[in-house]
Amino acid sequence: MTDSFDRLEETIRQRRSASPEESYVAKLTKKGRDKMAQKLGEEAVELVIAAVGGNREEAVKEGADLMFHLAILLADMGLSLDDVRAELDQREGVSGIAEKAARTKD
Amino acid sequence: MTDSFDRLEETIRQRRSASPEESYVAKLTKKGRDKMAQKLGEEAVELVIAAVGGNREEAVKEGADLMFHLAILLADMGLSLDDVRAELDQREGVSGIAEKAARTKD
Amino acid sequence: MTDSFDRLEETIRQRRSASPEESYVAKLTKKGRDKMAQKLGEEAVELVIAAVGGNREEAVKEGADLMFHLAILLADMGLSLDDVRAELDQREGVSGIAEKAARTKD
Amino acid sequence: MTDSFDRLEETIRQRRSASPEESYVAKLTKKGRDKMAQKLGEEAVELVIAAVGGNREEAVKEGADLMFHLAILLADMGLSLDDVRAELDQREGVSGIAEKAARTKD
Repeated sequence: MTDSFDRLEETIRQRRSASPEESYVAKLTKKGRDKMAQKLGEEAVELVIAAVGGNREEAVKEGADLMFHLAILLADMGLSLDDVRAELDQREGVSGIAEKAARTKD
Repeated sequence: MTDSFDRLEETIRQRRSASPEESYVAKLTKKGRDKMAQKLGEEAVELVIAAVGGNREEAVKEGADLMFHLAILLADMGLSLDDVRAELDQREGVSGIAEKAARTKD
Repeated sequence: MTDSFDRLEETIRQRRSASPEESYVAKLTKKGRDKMAQKLGEEAVELVIAAVGGNREEAVKEGADLMFHLAILLADMGLSLDDVRAELDQREGVSGIAEKAARTKD
Repeated sequence: MTDSFDRLEETIRQRRSASPEESYVAKLTKKGRDKMAQKLGEEAVELVIAAVGGNREEAVKEGADLMFHLAILLADMGLSLDDVRAELDQREGVSGIAEKAARTKD
């Protein structure tokens, strides 16, 4: 059973080369990197507003929009959520060591 | 083997109640929802700049920062990445049906 | 001769109560504070992208859009650009004193 | 009596070449365009949060921060608030004609 985020990325990869008339991903891809980045920024603003207003339902939708446009932007840069996962794993490792070192000092 | 994003969320859940002096998550949690939302907005801006500049290494780091603060914000609202996954899955289903309907029209 | 920003504010004040079908300001006003704030955030993102890309013509247009939505948002909060001017004047005064104090230390 | 925004721009122009240790403007200028754009984006996010939360005092402060960083960014691009004013004046003219045309239709 694959992860929802991975399926999202797979769908995006497939649709990038689809017809812009039929696919939102293809349409945005055609518009270029700046427009993809702009959309990500806009979705973040919408999530900020939903979160500050305590609107949980809206927050989930905007969170999904944010993940969608993050995956679109990464794909356009030849990157994927796995690169983000690897970065997070590396930090966790560093953080784990840092915590251990801190504990040893006590 | 758990997913990196899930481990990230688990770590965040544990650290929310840690000492603000020792944990960034606890410190940000103490500052409140507005500050968490602000940080998410800021990370999105940084990712936008990295993407527009074609800086792949920066984009991965900012993408990780964005995921980190998305998970922090969701946790504060009693939500999780699984809620976002469910929303994406539902859309995929709707989209699948929509595509089918469109094809039938041909 | 009045300042362009003041004329902009005067126009916005007049249009707030116009018909939403005829006026963008009235339409946005009807949608409420969150939508006005969202638009301001979006225009900022667009200006960021224009600036990073060194697109001067775009930057001027996005700067105008940003000022427009800043004035709309302030008006909705019962505030005006004059309140922003007063805040800047006060800071300049404080900064002047601070510089003087710093120079005395030499 | 000069306008507060014009005085702000004059101050920024003078400080751009000051010592980064003594001047925030010089420090930010040294960091480069991306950092200036980033700061503008961050201030916009803070204004969005203040506005959505109905925090008038905060909104004025964030509005001032936004104007400050807008002027810094424009200066770095060889632009000024007068370019933004000219853009707004031009739109007002176009809009005036458009309104006239609309009225003639009645």
